[in-house]
Amino acid sequence: MKKFVNEIENVLQESLQGFCNAHSELLEYQNDPCFVFRKGGGLQGKVALISGGGSGHEPLHAGLVGQGMLHAACPGEIFTSPTPDQMEAAALKVDGGEGVLFIVKNYSGDVMNFEMASEMINCPNKTIITNDDVAVEDSSFTTGRRGVAGTLIVEKIVGAASEEGSNLESCYKLGVEVNSRTRSMGVALTSCTVPAVGKPTFDIGNTEMEMGVGIHGEPGRKRVSIESANSIAEEMTNTVMEDLNSDPKDPVLLFINGFGATPIMELYLMYNCVHKLLTQKGYRVLRSLVGNYVTSLDMNGCSITVSSLNTEMIRLWDAPVNTAALRWKC
Amino acid sequence: MKKFVNEIENVLQESLQGFCNAHSELLEYQNDPCFVFRKGGGLQGKVALISGGGSGHEPLHAGLVGQGMLHAACPGEIFTSPTPDQMEAAALKVDGGEGVLFIVKNYSGDVMNFEMASEMINCPNKTIITNDDVAVEDSSFTTGRRGVAGTLIVEKIVGAASEEGSNLESCYKLGVEVNSRTRSMGVALTSCTVPAVGKPTFDIGNTEMEMGVGIHGEPGRKRVSIESANSIAEEMTNTVMEDLNSDPKDPVLLFINGFGATPIMELYLMYNCVHKLLTQKGYRVLRSLVGNYVTSLDMNGCSITVSSLNTEMIRLWDAPVNTAALRWKC
Repeated sequence: MKKFVNEIENVLQESLQGFCNAHSELLEYQNDPCFVFRKGGGLQGKVALISGGGSGHEPLHAGLVGQGMLHAACPGEIFTSPTPDQMEAAALKVDGGEGVLFIVKNYSGDVMNFEMASEMINCPNKTIITNDDVAVEDSSFTTGRRGVAGTLIVEKIVGAASEEGSNLESCYKLGVEVNSRTRSMGVALTSCTVPAVGKPTFDIGNTEMEMGVGIHGEPGRKRVSIESANSIAEEMTNTVMEDLNSDPKDPVLLFINGFGATPIMELYLMYNCVHKLLTQKGYRVLRSLVGNYVTSLDMNGCSITVSSLNTEMIRLWDAPVNTAALRWKC
Repeated sequence: MKKFVNEIENVLQESLQGFCNAHSELLEYQNDPCFVFRKGGGLQGKVALISGGGSGHEPLHAGLVGQGMLHAACPGEIFTSPTPDQMEAAALKVDGGEGVLFIVKNYSGDVMNFEMASEMINCPNKTIITNDDVAVEDSSFTTGRRGVAGTLIVEKIVGAASEEGSNLESCYKLGVEVNSRTRSMGVALTSCTVPAVGKPTFDIGNTEMEMGVGIHGEPGRKRVSIESANSIAEEMTNTVMEDLNSDPKDPVLLFINGFGATPIMELYLMYNCVHKLLTQKGYRVLRSLVGNYVTSLDMNGCSITVSSLNTEMIRLWDAPVNTAALRWKC
């Protein structure tokens, strides 16, 4: 295992400390129970957006805490759900009197623990479950579809609505609607390696790829020989767009997400392939995002996410955001 | 070789097309000779900043074109210098009547070709050569020290000065001064693989690292067994700070740069190690940057860069910037 680490049991804590130190103008960090939250005030009169999940997907979610996006994030151990007391403590800290909205990727542990937190806190609260991954129904840690990179799009758009003063019910409905308009699919060329395990999560041949892989290295649809970027893009784009079943007249947001070890040059090459395919199908790519945002430790691979957004959602996507990982107009 | 590519000979062109499409609100692209330039006007009365170099280091340099930073970037083939006609065409396009400032990483091919371009263009022009890598004197493609991640800091600070209307001589002097206050050193856990070569640039054992590696996989100081993140950080930080020899009273900018395949979680862990060491030595880390900015294709590794900046340089670092890879206050 080739990694920049000290003691294995401290990886999360050391990385999180570094993260919060590097972005101390944006964020604060509270330990035991652990969560990251926006620095400064500005909470009053806003719906508090809280997300979280297992670590190893950085910059998701802590990198998305800041003006125009999340109010707090609860990091679990690597690929392990955070605990309800983390979410409870975060809610207590960032509740601004307008209620709490949890945004949760659809993994059984996460869903269960956020549900417990929801019952523990006294303020009004709702939970959006994201499930954008079209690759498989049910998976190692999931009943139904997995929540993956599309979660970032939900967090951005709902974050902008909260910032503008939308109430809990409106934010919730908006998030559910954005999730329903969003589909993703991933592919891996290599496995990730969980530090505490010390060896790759799955074995994969030198000329193979895992089509439809999950962000914890869960199995996808099939193990096949690596194909050209165009062929990979075509299979993923077709699967995503058939499932999304949106009107080609509606503009789309195209998000090419790296899993952690994929060179930026290749992510943009994949963007080029998918952009061409969507254009050929008559879709108008109105917004784009390319980079390592929802990663899987050191996995070499990527996912494509397409969101079919209405004019109001595009406006909210464009609204100012100031987080460690996503920043514009701020 | 596991990569998202189509025909090997088209990797650069397809990736660049994807890049410019994804950021079409910021950039335009001109082919034959090839360069990327800022969209829209705003050139008049500003010193035109142009950089470039071999590709494979994305997002450097094209990802740093935009308001408050570069006016144009000339990408060469992977790890190959761009040609003087690219630089000449870029200069012709972005010259705003105040002259052209080339920012060039110290590699013999780049330096020679930018020198030729400098003689070909008719407007006043100067060239800053960056050489921040303390690891080795002379290298595979370099006489003297290599220019690496510190180049980004020079481009950001000089970019802000140009935006404010500083003249050619002032921008040049500022860039030379920032370069002289900046030191970097890298380490690799794995080699990169150039697509056209199809196999790793260098062989490295399962428990080895290359200390002082260059951003093209050039040899560093030594090949040794992997150590803890703390030990790696300590060796690199000591080397950098001894060479920088700055007054601990001066604030520093700490930049942890990933080489392309290093998980973000580990980059922040390395940041944490180096931040602690600098603090112990009495330095005040006033600004930070962590991420994949000056990459080496799919190399797993990172570099640390420290700049000792004065108040005016910090102000220029903080000034608005709106590029694909670096964006704040815009």
